[in-house]
Amino acid sequence: MGLKRLSILGVGLLGGSIGLAVRKLLNDCTVVGYGHRPATLNEALALGAIQEASPSAAKAVNAADFVILCTPVGIFDEVLEQIAPVLVPGAIVTDVGSTKRSVVAAAERLLPPGVWFVGSHPMAGSEKRGVHYAEASLFEGAVCITTPTAHTNPAALETVENFWKLLGMQLVRLSPAEHDRRLADVSHLPHALAAALVSLQEEASLPLAGKGFLDSTRIAAGDGGLWRDIFVDNRDNLRDSLRRFRLQLDRLDALLAATDTEAVKSWLEAAAARRQTLNP
Amino acid sequence: MGLKRLSILGVGLLGGSIGLAVRKLLNDCTVVGYGHRPATLNEALALGAIQEASPSAAKAVNAADFVILCTPVGIFDEVLEQIAPVLVPGAIVTDVGSTKRSVVAAAERLLPPGVWFVGSHPMAGSEKRGVHYAEASLFEGAVCITTPTAHTNPAALETVENFWKLLGMQLVRLSPAEHDRRLADVSHLPHALAAALVSLQEEASLPLAGKGFLDSTRIAAGDGGLWRDIFVDNRDNLRDSLRRFRLQLDRLDALLAATDTEAVKSWLEAAAARRQTLNP
Repeated sequence: MGLKRLSILGVGLLGGSIGLAVRKLLNDCTVVGYGHRPATLNEALALGAIQEASPSAAKAVNAADFVILCTPVGIFDEVLEQIAPVLVPGAIVTDVGSTKRSVVAAAERLLPPGVWFVGSHPMAGSEKRGVHYAEASLFEGAVCITTPTAHTNPAALETVENFWKLLGMQLVRLSPAEHDRRLADVSHLPHALAAALVSLQEEASLPLAGKGFLDSTRIAAGDGGLWRDIFVDNRDNLRDSLRRFRLQLDRLDALLAATDTEAVKSWLEAAAARRQTLNP
Repeated sequence: MGLKRLSILGVGLLGGSIGLAVRKLLNDCTVVGYGHRPATLNEALALGAIQEASPSAAKAVNAADFVILCTPVGIFDEVLEQIAPVLVPGAIVTDVGSTKRSVVAAAERLLPPGVWFVGSHPMAGSEKRGVHYAEASLFEGAVCITTPTAHTNPAALETVENFWKLLGMQLVRLSPAEHDRRLADVSHLPHALAAALVSLQEEASLPLAGKGFLDSTRIAAGDGGLWRDIFVDNRDNLRDSLRRFRLQLDRLDALLAATDTEAVKSWLEAAAARRQTLNP
């Protein structure tokens, strides 16, 4: 890859896992981490996820040729403003944010000429949180979406995509708008449903929760602040996903009201057949 | 336990797993299986899940002191009518059905005096189907709900509960009505949501499905006919669960429409805190 100095801004589960993977795969690259909590930086150093730690984002990107934003999406603007004046010419900046329209627009607005931004969304992670759970293998086999625009430098795009490939990811390119629209359906809506399903339950029903309930609500245990950022940032798309989801429920409700046994079966069988085509 | 002859009516995943567990735990008990497909009976015999096979439910319960209905709920009435004339006095009959009001009422109506019915719902299983996936350990650690009524024989209830305990289950007693109401919330609604979530997706979004989507929709791969029976049988409760669920979504939608960032966060954090109290 030729990377000499990688700066990871935010060393949580994703940032820490990137650090561990790079330490394993790229011998000649120095990994620098930024985090606002000293305890997190110390843990990242102790785990070998980073080699140098900085309590300042600006200092952490000093002389870095590759920078990855791994903080919550809600503070991306702030971090971009801090690093913009100190990035070296030719530096490539990417991110791991779960929404892309606002992130890409902010990066293209705030970063100086000669610094190349490419939006990324590596779809790895879990409901767990923090560098403590970081693993070098976190990204293997998972999908990473890049979101180039008319302003994206083709060489930088290639470098960023090669980076994620090196970590074992399968690359998909989407526009920021298409990313946000599709992710509302396959990621943000499922989280909203899981949280609503947990919220709905009476206390006395929780001991009756079986494997099906646990599987279908696992994501609801994820960090509230992080998901708040995603929901609010992508609220137009998420509201449209919710609207279309309610149409699905209305349809099922109408079939149940009519005791249309055959149509209920067809509806369930179509969903089952489709789900069976995906990974277990 | 003192069981001499156990009759399993329906040797699929649950019936087959009961057979394997009993063969392992009760040396003196003969396990007889009924199924309408000869191939299934042969596979159950070959796997050691049953020792004798019968293509007739009536013949399979001949001289049995313990009978478990494991067919889909939709044909329970038919099976009860077939076995009612031939059950021996003192025989105990239970079931593994996912709905309980209709099952318990049918059993109390159709079974003759001197035969004791106890409704059971062992909450084990998976989206997989068939005796091929049967495992003796399927029930270990899972919850089993029994649904006694004023007509339930206390000694029969104790025997049935001891049977499920022997298989490693944790027992909970509920009335049939409370069972169906709570299970609509913790089991039938989650299945409906998972199926609706799969149905909603555009084809081009499916390759973007990550671990969260896969977890939250896993149950949607389950057998359509079996879930049709459950949905239709429990449609009053399921429709009420759907109604209350839509109120949750309406609330989230209103918070997003108002960009009420703090309230979105509180809603997500309350769900996360609650989900974290359950098994992962």
